[in-house]
Amino acid sequence: FCLFPAVAMPTVSRVAVCGGTHGNELAGIYLVREMLKKRADGTEPVSVVTVMSNPRAAQLCVRYVETDLNRCFTRAALRPLPRTSPYEMIRSQELNALLGAQRSVDLLCDLHNTTANTGLCLITYSDRDWICLHICKHLQREMASTPVRYVHFDIPLNEAYSLDSVGKHGFAMEIGPQPHGVVRSVIFSAMQEGVQLMMDWICQFNSGTLFEGGWVDVYTMVKNIDYPRDSETHMISAAVHPDLQDRDFCLLHPGDPMFLCFSGETLRYRGKEALYPFFINEGAYYEKGVALSLARKRRVQIPSVL
Amino acid sequence: FCLFPAVAMPTVSRVAVCGGTHGNELAGIYLVREMLKKRADGTEPVSVVTVMSNPRAAQLCVRYVETDLNRCFTRAALRPLPRTSPYEMIRSQELNALLGAQRSVDLLCDLHNTTANTGLCLITYSDRDWICLHICKHLQREMASTPVRYVHFDIPLNEAYSLDSVGKHGFAMEIGPQPHGVVRSVIFSAMQEGVQLMMDWICQFNSGTLFEGGWVDVYTMVKNIDYPRDSETHMISAAVHPDLQDRDFCLLHPGDPMFLCFSGETLRYRGKEALYPFFINEGAYYEKGVALSLARKRRVQIPSVL
Repeated sequence: FCLFPAVAMPTVSRVAVCGGTHGNELAGIYLVREMLKKRADGTEPVSVVTVMSNPRAAQLCVRYVETDLNRCFTRAALRPLPRTSPYEMIRSQELNALLGAQRSVDLLCDLHNTTANTGLCLITYSDRDWICLHICKHLQREMASTPVRYVHFDIPLNEAYSLDSVGKHGFAMEIGPQPHGVVRSVIFSAMQEGVQLMMDWICQFNSGTLFEGGWVDVYTMVKNIDYPRDSETHMISAAVHPDLQDRDFCLLHPGDPMFLCFSGETLRYRGKEALYPFFINEGAYYEKGVALSLARKRRVQIPSVL
Repeated sequence: FCLFPAVAMPTVSRVAVCGGTHGNELAGIYLVREMLKKRADGTEPVSVVTVMSNPRAAQLCVRYVETDLNRCFTRAALRPLPRTSPYEMIRSQELNALLGAQRSVDLLCDLHNTTANTGLCLITYSDRDWICLHICKHLQREMASTPVRYVHFDIPLNEAYSLDSVGKHGFAMEIGPQPHGVVRSVIFSAMQEGVQLMMDWICQFNSGTLFEGGWVDVYTMVKNIDYPRDSETHMISAAVHPDLQDRDFCLLHPGDPMFLCFSGETLRYRGKEALYPFFINEGAYYEKGVALSLARKRRVQIPSVL
């Protein structure tokens, strides 16, 4: 066990808040529209750029027009493209030019909603990004109504595929449950509060406040599980079991019910290790063959920062 | 007050169960697929035709491809059409030829889901269809887990626009809450149980059972209420208030909170009459300019039938 010394880190001067990366995740879309109404008066201590990531999809209230924008930020996808490429492939390059590339923002917060009962998650590619971890700790301390969790996708940064990966620091702020194409007031308010608390933390941090270190629970994604499917038609043959539905981040033990077949049969979790399910029955993942994801939880020690 | 004599009614010999009239309402789609797997063995006491109403939309998991199929069954829409008409306009004619027109089924049950917390509703165009009302009463008696309600759209039958209107008797069986593009096990099971109880009632009725009369609460739709909108952009500027969200069929009084603006202001119900809200924050109705519908409730006396 070791106590880290306080780490001095550069200020977070340029922040991007993005919504509508998926055009039917409405809390982020309406929040960005609200933020765009309030013109900057030039006296803010932090420069915030507010972006509607996929305006065409938002206009149509669909996740995407041609391909999932939030899979278009890999190094490979950001190479020069023919003009005839899908809309989202071109849009990801525009967004990378605006927010990433040479003029990378210090922090990119990308707003998302899920049909799963996740509460608020900060989803990142790093389990040692002290800025993201401290913001998470701040939200956990300050948000009374919503559970806040830190999710880590353990992927090399050059394979990172999502918009938040183009900032120097970045995360998806994912809040659920909310149906796609619907805005629920409590979800909108939680997102608004989450963004405000993030900005408060950044302003305090930039003005020299020391934030004490401590521990944060990190959920590292281990694997995805698909729906059971008919061997001939490949159509799904079961729904998430009622005992598992809406139990995101509740430990799933070997033998626990996982699916209830349309024919009535219960299928159980056959893994050897108890793990934490999340994104349980997320609507947009049917087409990706993901009924839920499973994570391992561990406590990560973070240093004091200033 | 009068006690009706028992009414002798013709048997219900031909039944249609339709799903996927909206291609992203998944409980009905998976239930119809299950029913289609079980081939009729020719010994059933009732002839049931099972129909995937909008297979193209179901394939794409969207509400519709070109236009809302469930608005294409008015008398006007069923007139001869050019071949270049939208897919759903042509499909409504195929369905009418199959289920309505000269060879009308005795009862058409069309399966729907909503993001609103409606429980199970039978939605009809009549408040004196004894078959529909008795089926409703049967479901109310037998379904333990789900509230069952009878909703009446007070529209002349020749203006009826939905698929269920082409049967001699018919209703939409609407169950929520469920996000579109998602199947939740408890919603699927409730729908399966609702259809099974309907079939049980029909079989008993056809075999000469007398069903006692009594009273059924009927919710007659009075009006729709749109979301508050920005006067310039016409974009919605408020979400359904947290105190109203998910309170379908709970009496709304004048002065009760109705919307919470994204700017923080509460807007209240300004009607003069307490009414019953339903379809509160239904995802598919954003494009129709409907945040919720309001109904008047009254008790309807129904005769014994045999």
